[in-house]
Amino acid sequence: MRRPQGPISPTRLESFSDSVIAVIITITALEIRPPQGDNLTSLDSGLPLLLAYVMGFVFIGIYWNNHHHLLRTAKRINGSVMWANLHLLFWLSLIPAATVWAGNFPTDKLPAIAFGVVGIMAGIAYYILGQTLIHADKGNKLDMLLGRDTKGIVSQVLYAIGIGAVFISPLLAYGIYILVSVMWLVPDPRLARGEEEPT
Amino acid sequence: MRRPQGPISPTRLESFSDSVIAVIITITALEIRPPQGDNLTSLDSGLPLLLAYVMGFVFIGIYWNNHHHLLRTAKRINGSVMWANLHLLFWLSLIPAATVWAGNFPTDKLPAIAFGVVGIMAGIAYYILGQTLIHADKGNKLDMLLGRDTKGIVSQVLYAIGIGAVFISPLLAYGIYILVSVMWLVPDPRLARGEEEPT
Amino acid sequence: MRRPQGPISPTRLESFSDSVIAVIITITALEIRPPQGDNLTSLDSGLPLLLAYVMGFVFIGIYWNNHHHLLRTAKRINGSVMWANLHLLFWLSLIPAATVWAGNFPTDKLPAIAFGVVGIMAGIAYYILGQTLIHADKGNKLDMLLGRDTKGIVSQVLYAIGIGAVFISPLLAYGIYILVSVMWLVPDPRLARGEEEPT
Amino acid sequence: MRRPQGPISPTRLESFSDSVIAVIITITALEIRPPQGDNLTSLDSGLPLLLAYVMGFVFIGIYWNNHHHLLRTAKRINGSVMWANLHLLFWLSLIPAATVWAGNFPTDKLPAIAFGVVGIMAGIAYYILGQTLIHADKGNKLDMLLGRDTKGIVSQVLYAIGIGAVFISPLLAYGIYILVSVMWLVPDPRLARGEEEPT
Repeated sequence: MRRPQGPISPTRLESFSDSVIAVIITITALEIRPPQGDNLTSLDSGLPLLLAYVMGFVFIGIYWNNHHHLLRTAKRINGSVMWANLHLLFWLSLIPAATVWAGNFPTDKLPAIAFGVVGIMAGIAYYILGQTLIHADKGNKLDMLLGRDTKGIVSQVLYAIGIGAVFISPLLAYGIYILVSVMWLVPDPRLARGEEEPT
Repeated sequence: MRRPQGPISPTRLESFSDSVIAVIITITALEIRPPQGDNLTSLDSGLPLLLAYVMGFVFIGIYWNNHHHLLRTAKRINGSVMWANLHLLFWLSLIPAATVWAGNFPTDKLPAIAFGVVGIMAGIAYYILGQTLIHADKGNKLDMLLGRDTKGIVSQVLYAIGIGAVFISPLLAYGIYILVSVMWLVPDPRLARGEEEPT
Repeated sequence: MRRPQGPISPTRLESFSDSVIAVIITITALEIRPPQGDNLTSLDSGLPLLLAYVMGFVFIGIYWNNHHHLLRTAKRINGSVMWANLHLLFWLSLIPAATVWAGNFPTDKLPAIAFGVVGIMAGIAYYILGQTLIHADKGNKLDMLLGRDTKGIVSQVLYAIGIGAVFISPLLAYGIYILVSVMWLVPDPRLARGEEEPT
Repeated sequence: MRRPQGPISPTRLESFSDSVIAVIITITALEIRPPQGDNLTSLDSGLPLLLAYVMGFVFIGIYWNNHHHLLRTAKRINGSVMWANLHLLFWLSLIPAATVWAGNFPTDKLPAIAFGVVGIMAGIAYYILGQTLIHADKGNKLDMLLGRDTKGIVSQVLYAIGIGAVFISPLLAYGIYILVSVMWLVPDPRLARGEEEPT
């Protein structure tokens, strides 16, 4: 039988995740809309929202990149991986709302805390996804690679510091969140070698 | 001729459904947006909407999972399968609206009834899709698998009870709907074996 | 060289079109949202919008189905096909706006005319796409199949009658538009044989 | 090992970009919605927004086409290509917001400037993407093809002139932007030969 029962294929999980992430990464953009044409005041200029959008876009872009590297080494997945993946997508799907909230109230505390919490929860969800992948596929090379995820731990610590920093200044918190993103933009030598990729 | 006339390929049906479901599962998230930054009151906190979003997200996630298991055993499909699939997607596409409605008016009766009705109709549509798949592809192993769909029947009964429970309390109804989802989150030994999946 | 210059592959055109259609078919659903919970009046019940949504959903579903049958016989495409396809997607992308407009003002003339015009323009765009496909790929079996597109011509005539009927009653016009959809829901023996589909 | 570590595959980058572009190209359409049914005045007719939507749709369509031609010659990509691609998608994702802004305030200066700036930045992002692709894959035929990108340079100059023209008349600026699009709609003999494309 050509299509046996069994878990979702990694390929389809990847392609579904891509579609979800594609919606998440773009849906916010439509909100960046000043209510007026000319004669903008600084309050309705849309600039804070534009900056928040950049922050959210880079955040999702990094997860898309990491998600791909995580899944592409997977050869076997099971139901737990499927739900761990949906769990990660759930937290990522809150980024548009957090972004719009942060962009509309850039100096308020709650939106800044919300963004940090989503950052931490997405990090935890990503870790869980990695663990379920390793569990589903013993002997996966991933095991070795994820052994010492220093960058992931540092990110979580920085998000926690950022949430604390909200009580000094929400803008300081956003600065720390952006620092996390910059850290990830630097290529990771562990997973991204420049080898040729067939297909 | 490499691409003969004939019905839609299962692969393309699957991939189109995935794209539709990806939009459905994420589009609601942008609505979770309190109108203010700090100084939220309980009414405009967005928390009921966030909880409704979780409920809708899990609902769609379960259908995505089940949909995949249903279609992957299919080798032949025809026009009836195509429309039965669109019929299912139609009911799923009402979940975002039902979610936002429920989240904005969590103690009102009509939104709670609407969510239950969509749950029942999606269940019926899923059943019809299964039947058209069996009809399109005699001898499909699916036939055997779907023979006694206890879980599906129990879900329908629980949704009906939930709709009745609205008249006691809408929150009780949501509790019953969530119970249905929890029941599906438990892995189904019939369809999801941990076998290796090539591709 | 494995990936030579040349036109867009039919597969990628198909998959891009699928993604666009997936967004179009679902995006409207979020709009079906009564402003209140209980105590709805007939005006803000959302029911006309729900019915309009069904009409738009079936309209797009039919085009997705036909689009697939048209493209799957294609082996060669060129830049003209690419733009003829985008032209069709453009008209389809106006369906959500036309649907919401019609649903909010079901007894007004302009929305009913708009829906009919989009129906006619989409039909013309589909015809042009068929012609560019035949031109791009001489000897395509499609040529034979499209030779007598009675159904397509009847649809165009009915949409024109529908636009005229708006001046008697917009609801009569919608009735005629729905008749066109019903006509297409009947399986077409020319293109949809129940043959096995490898892949 | 079947799925080695390495960069994102060109196929997946392409398919993710397609999904993002599919959302971008359609999401604006829902905004084209006059607040009333009959009795429209010229101000709330939605016509300027419809025209702006056509302009944005063609803009994105051209990028989708060019993006495909650029990526399909790529056999090797790396992390820089991935981020250069996301950078391009970022600018494209601002088109819906710029379109809605321009359509709502067609005679205001700021929206017209914004559209021009997005046009220039997307052009720069496309150029950077081309350069990173060449760098990632020495000996790529693309190198030769991109050698003299006259059309790209002319576009950038025209967008700059358009931004200047805003101070004469925003409508003149839009005229110049549309001229750029028309220029790209003419088939490019360098990249789009009518050769057969297997799959």
